[in-house]
Amino acid sequence: MNVVELIRKKRDGNPLSKVEIEFLVSSYTENKIPDYQFSSFLMASYLKGMNAEETSALTNVMLNSGIVINLNDITGKKIDKHSTGGVGDKTSLIIAPIAAAAGVIVPMISGRGLGHTGGTLDKLESIPGFKTDLNLSEYKRVLKKCGVVLIGQTKNIAPADKSIYALRDVTGTVESIPLITASIMSKKLAEGVDGLVLDVKTGNGAFMRTTKASVELADSLINTAKAFNKKVVALITDMNQPLGNYIGNWLEVYESIKILKGKIVSGDLYQLCITLSGTMIYLGGKVSSVKEGIKLSESLIRNGKAFDKFVEVVKRQGGDINYLLQPEKYPKPKFVIDVSSAKDGYIKEINTYSIGMAALELGAGRLKKEDIIDPVAGIIFNVKIGDKIKKGDRIATVHSNSKLKSEIAVNKIVDSITYSKSKVNKPKLIKRIIT
Amino acid sequence: MNVVELIRKKRDGNPLSKVEIEFLVSSYTENKIPDYQFSSFLMASYLKGMNAEETSALTNVMLNSGIVINLNDITGKKIDKHSTGGVGDKTSLIIAPIAAAAGVIVPMISGRGLGHTGGTLDKLESIPGFKTDLNLSEYKRVLKKCGVVLIGQTKNIAPADKSIYALRDVTGTVESIPLITASIMSKKLAEGVDGLVLDVKTGNGAFMRTTKASVELADSLINTAKAFNKKVVALITDMNQPLGNYIGNWLEVYESIKILKGKIVSGDLYQLCITLSGTMIYLGGKVSSVKEGIKLSESLIRNGKAFDKFVEVVKRQGGDINYLLQPEKYPKPKFVIDVSSAKDGYIKEINTYSIGMAALELGAGRLKKEDIIDPVAGIIFNVKIGDKIKKGDRIATVHSNSKLKSEIAVNKIVDSITYSKSKVNKPKLIKRIIT
Repeated sequence: MNVVELIRKKRDGNPLSKVEIEFLVSSYTENKIPDYQFSSFLMASYLKGMNAEETSALTNVMLNSGIVINLNDITGKKIDKHSTGGVGDKTSLIIAPIAAAAGVIVPMISGRGLGHTGGTLDKLESIPGFKTDLNLSEYKRVLKKCGVVLIGQTKNIAPADKSIYALRDVTGTVESIPLITASIMSKKLAEGVDGLVLDVKTGNGAFMRTTKASVELADSLINTAKAFNKKVVALITDMNQPLGNYIGNWLEVYESIKILKGKIVSGDLYQLCITLSGTMIYLGGKVSSVKEGIKLSESLIRNGKAFDKFVEVVKRQGGDINYLLQPEKYPKPKFVIDVSSAKDGYIKEINTYSIGMAALELGAGRLKKEDIIDPVAGIIFNVKIGDKIKKGDRIATVHSNSKLKSEIAVNKIVDSITYSKSKVNKPKLIKRIIT
Repeated sequence: MNVVELIRKKRDGNPLSKVEIEFLVSSYTENKIPDYQFSSFLMASYLKGMNAEETSALTNVMLNSGIVINLNDITGKKIDKHSTGGVGDKTSLIIAPIAAAAGVIVPMISGRGLGHTGGTLDKLESIPGFKTDLNLSEYKRVLKKCGVVLIGQTKNIAPADKSIYALRDVTGTVESIPLITASIMSKKLAEGVDGLVLDVKTGNGAFMRTTKASVELADSLINTAKAFNKKVVALITDMNQPLGNYIGNWLEVYESIKILKGKIVSGDLYQLCITLSGTMIYLGGKVSSVKEGIKLSESLIRNGKAFDKFVEVVKRQGGDINYLLQPEKYPKPKFVIDVSSAKDGYIKEINTYSIGMAALELGAGRLKKEDIIDPVAGIIFNVKIGDKIKKGDRIATVHSNSKLKSEIAVNKIVDSITYSKSKVNKPKLIKRIIT
């Protein structure tokens, strides 16, 4: 096969065969095709798209570039969740123990913070001692004993994704639905799951800003999951404001504890968590509908089993559970600064991207790969779209170890809010469920 | 400026500014941008196009990547011709001396054979001793004394074109009108010309197969030439059959001598040559219309001045003029094989690409860069579309030093011709003249 001919074929809008895609990707990962040819192919794919068969073929070759974990020796359905990322999205920490408490096996491989969005691994690592870099046998041992494990991507899972993503990042080819699909699905399929719940975020704090683009991505992810005989449900959920009220690594663990302990039983975060865990429990075959799964999730919170499961998995992965049991003992930031409203009115819009960037700049995320995360840094964001606010009301509290960074964040938060004189409707949290 | 942002801008279909294009191209040629980013940009440009301003900016930065020859010390208008390439296209060898004989200054920088099309340099080098690699001062000296010079591209002319073309060749981004335009015009403008005649070929032996694409390329070339204040005329000419009857390096020099000596005064090659040289003479200000230029061209052939000019330039560039004066003395190929028609009928179509490839495989061109050209190899192709042929008529003669290659070529030639039982119209040679 001739590489230039294949690039031309894609460039001219003709679909490539499975064999052609396998040839291109495996040649690239084996360093037989130079970066400059593969980036030209990526740009052609970005602009001309890929059909469902091509996307599956791409996923397949990326998946098989590394190990595919076999979990057949663990009985029970293995179900994971993937979120496309947002601000304040700590649902993984909450729903993994809920689903596991219901008897679903939850092998969860998560990522680090990316840009303005936080990462589950960074959040978990704010618990002192928590190990996210388990090797494969530790991973399976924790999963077998506990029914849930929470680790980071190892370098032998879908290594092709790693090299392709690095090239996309520097060649303007990131925001492509088939390329994103293959990147997500190759990693998730390598976990050895039977089913997957997808939380596709939409709005000004998400990578997909419009519902149309989010539905397109969800459809592509679903088609690909089905091509690999996986059960799958996708939720299109709102990301036009931070999810819950806490943003920042320890702050998000703290809010997760509150949910798992049943201290917060309403609001967007609670609703989304029980829906996601309810769907996982349904896909895991433990109940006969999502509705029943939601009910079971609520009772597992009420009877303490979900929180107990969280404590168990943290303990098994080396984390200090004293901070889960007595979160008020966690180290405090040097600066805790309230942000007050300068206006009266209804909250109309929140620039969620900007709130995410403010948290990142406080130390909750990384601007550069080598930046060190400050686990206590973050924002408690008190308001939601539609809330009626009076001048002087506290809209947020900034937690930081740097006075200068706090001041920058305070300004960013103030600037990120738009008010309206007339009443504003709250956005719908779950916009669509696609199966 | 951020390279990825510029790639994304082009990818999303937004035009880049002059400064942005200059930044990208000059950074690339200075090795500050890696190949993989530039190839992604090239593919985005291929698929999203470039407007006239972008094309001019690209031409300008490529032009200024090397030396721009100053011919101000040579009096008279400097006019060149550029052809997009075809099979049997030896017009440069004929029209350069005609125009020079009319007093036009013709600084002609030509290329080598590319794929199925021959190259003027390879043809000239079939004349023993002919030097195409003159340095700049030799180039100017010959041009000053003789009014015409015929050389190859030196590495200090538009070096950016060389590196960009090499990258396009391996990344599926060759057939792009703005990229082709900038590649052609950056080299032609570097010659220091005042005006340019463009011969844009169209048909199954050309790089642009449709008239639409050829007109688009011609328009783009004209716009760019005008942006640099150059006089320009473009001819869209037929390339659905070989031009003239001879294909191969020495064979084409031989046919050129016949035209210049006035031994062929009709047919497509003759008509095209006098039209092209007539246009050059007109752009050179020596006559007041193309029609007068054509008349003058014919008289310069009749009175021997055009041929004398050819002999003069060959002599000044080191060529052995004995072969021009007595072409029958040129070495003969080992095998001369006639190809006869197996059918009766009218010639309907000729697969000109295939004829070009047959000549190349005989040794008239290069499949790989390092292939050595056989100057005597080639094809005398006797028939034209519309000709009435009887079974057994000679349709071609193959010249070669290899029996095996001859046999392959014979089969290719036979297969390249389609017959019709009913009369077939001859294609129009000059389809359009655009100014």
